[in-house]
Amino acid sequence: MMNLYEIARYLEAHDNYEILTHAYPDGDTLGSGFALCLALQQTGKKARVITTGVPSKFVYLKDGVSEQSFDAQTIISTDVAADSLLGSNTEKYVGRIDICIDHHGSNSLTAKHKFVDKYAAANCEIIYKLLQRMGVKITKEIANCLYTGISTDTGCFRYTNTTAETMRVAASLMDFGCDTAYINKAMFETKSREKIQLEHAVYDTISYCAGGRCAVIYTTLDMVKRLGIGDDEMEGLASIPRQIEGVLIGITMREKEDGFFKISVRTNGDINASDFCAQFGGGGHPAAAGCTIEGDLDSVKARLVEAAERFL
Amino acid sequence: MMNLYEIARYLEAHDNYEILTHAYPDGDTLGSGFALCLALQQTGKKARVITTGVPSKFVYLKDGVSEQSFDAQTIISTDVAADSLLGSNTEKYVGRIDICIDHHGSNSLTAKHKFVDKYAAANCEIIYKLLQRMGVKITKEIANCLYTGISTDTGCFRYTNTTAETMRVAASLMDFGCDTAYINKAMFETKSREKIQLEHAVYDTISYCAGGRCAVIYTTLDMVKRLGIGDDEMEGLASIPRQIEGVLIGITMREKEDGFFKISVRTNGDINASDFCAQFGGGGHPAAAGCTIEGDLDSVKARLVEAAERFL
Repeated sequence: MMNLYEIARYLEAHDNYEILTHAYPDGDTLGSGFALCLALQQTGKKARVITTGVPSKFVYLKDGVSEQSFDAQTIISTDVAADSLLGSNTEKYVGRIDICIDHHGSNSLTAKHKFVDKYAAANCEIIYKLLQRMGVKITKEIANCLYTGISTDTGCFRYTNTTAETMRVAASLMDFGCDTAYINKAMFETKSREKIQLEHAVYDTISYCAGGRCAVIYTTLDMVKRLGIGDDEMEGLASIPRQIEGVLIGITMREKEDGFFKISVRTNGDINASDFCAQFGGGGHPAAAGCTIEGDLDSVKARLVEAAERFL
Repeated sequence: MMNLYEIARYLEAHDNYEILTHAYPDGDTLGSGFALCLALQQTGKKARVITTGVPSKFVYLKDGVSEQSFDAQTIISTDVAADSLLGSNTEKYVGRIDICIDHHGSNSLTAKHKFVDKYAAANCEIIYKLLQRMGVKITKEIANCLYTGISTDTGCFRYTNTTAETMRVAASLMDFGCDTAYINKAMFETKSREKIQLEHAVYDTISYCAGGRCAVIYTTLDMVKRLGIGDDEMEGLASIPRQIEGVLIGITMREKEDGFFKISVRTNGDINASDFCAQFGGGGHPAAAGCTIEGDLDSVKARLVEAAERFL
């Protein structure tokens, strides 16, 4: 485990960075990646961010990033908790990562050096502190990246991972000119027509078990195809079942192409989502975790319902 | 205009306080009132909060408040912008208010002394600063009151009124032990099953006009009766149409018992909701306004659609 001062010195001593983000990228991994890239470029280093594709709602995170041509020498990962989460980049990069910066307590990524702070609400909170130790000027573009990661990973400061420190970092980013009006509107107050239709369809799938303490929703490939939904529209669905009064375990099942369901679990109270998902080989945070299960809709749902009734 | 030091000294010099809140009370007026009451009681003063009724979701704000018997000598108002907003308490108190503490720029309340800061996102932000000048210890109960006001008036820190200062005050309240997990869950992350069903039913009513720049949703008496929905479940529906991508005018129509529809209009960009509603004898804020229109569903909707197409 390196500390943030040591990472800052390491970054000073090396060059030609590739910054890895996780598959199905969210605001935190992309915000971390692009903020760090901007910071490295500001200090005269060469750097690029490697993604599995930037969803259209996040393209503003690239503002100010220069496209640079170089042979990669140093590999950093941001917000990547496990080798497999590199997605299509796994084979190319696994085992080659020099520094892993993450906020998942369960981090198992293969990397030479690591900094993992599970008390950081967002990985961008860590990146903010790293940038201070690098002596980087927090530009409006960097502030936008970091605010995006922090606000999206905390549900705009409403999830229980939000700390006083999270609020203070966000306050500083606002002092540095981040465009909270644009970001909050785009992240939290805008839904595409397709997303509205998807939510509508998903509401039809709500079922309850364990006496109303568990709610399950799902999407199927058919639904997604019929509505013409992109993968980035699927984000946020997982918060629906947990919001229902009396629900302790909210489960969202997404059918994938390969015969698997991607399961997102969100919990209330002291129910541990990560422990729940561990039963299926998954993991995550105490209140938000995930796993994948092979099978058809009915059988996967039956296994989850049975597990929930046992768990509660 | 008194400053907050002067108000603190005034509160020290007087006693037997009644603290007024506005009618249809929200988290900010109640949070302000109960926080100030707790603070005054802590300094050995007698104090009570006067409301038009505390909705059940806000009863925790009374935690720690002592019921005291005394003849009122000093009247303070918190978050009350105009005489009429005292509701059923107007007649009794208007003209008797010693100090008005508010954050509405439009404040027109009759009061001997005033402190109005329109840059405060919530009145509770002002009360926090006043309590510091009073030398009061910020207990967990006071912190809960103030956090409730700040978080509800900012949509949990996502509305454009949120400033870096707002975030820092919230951070301090978290240091003082406020129960953000409970408050955020209760205010922002809980929907009854009935509310979920209502949203589902409302999604069925979405229609677009003006080339997708206007979206209309509605509820009918039939829908509300069939789902067994109370009036407090209707809150928040109006934000649905404005959230849809590309929509500049979001219109929500609610059928009332008397042959009228209550219309809520929410706008994006520089479309003025108040001007739009003025066409129907209504009004409000630039981005959120309302009016009532008599008629049946189809005719009222047709008038709104025609008005929207003319307006855009």
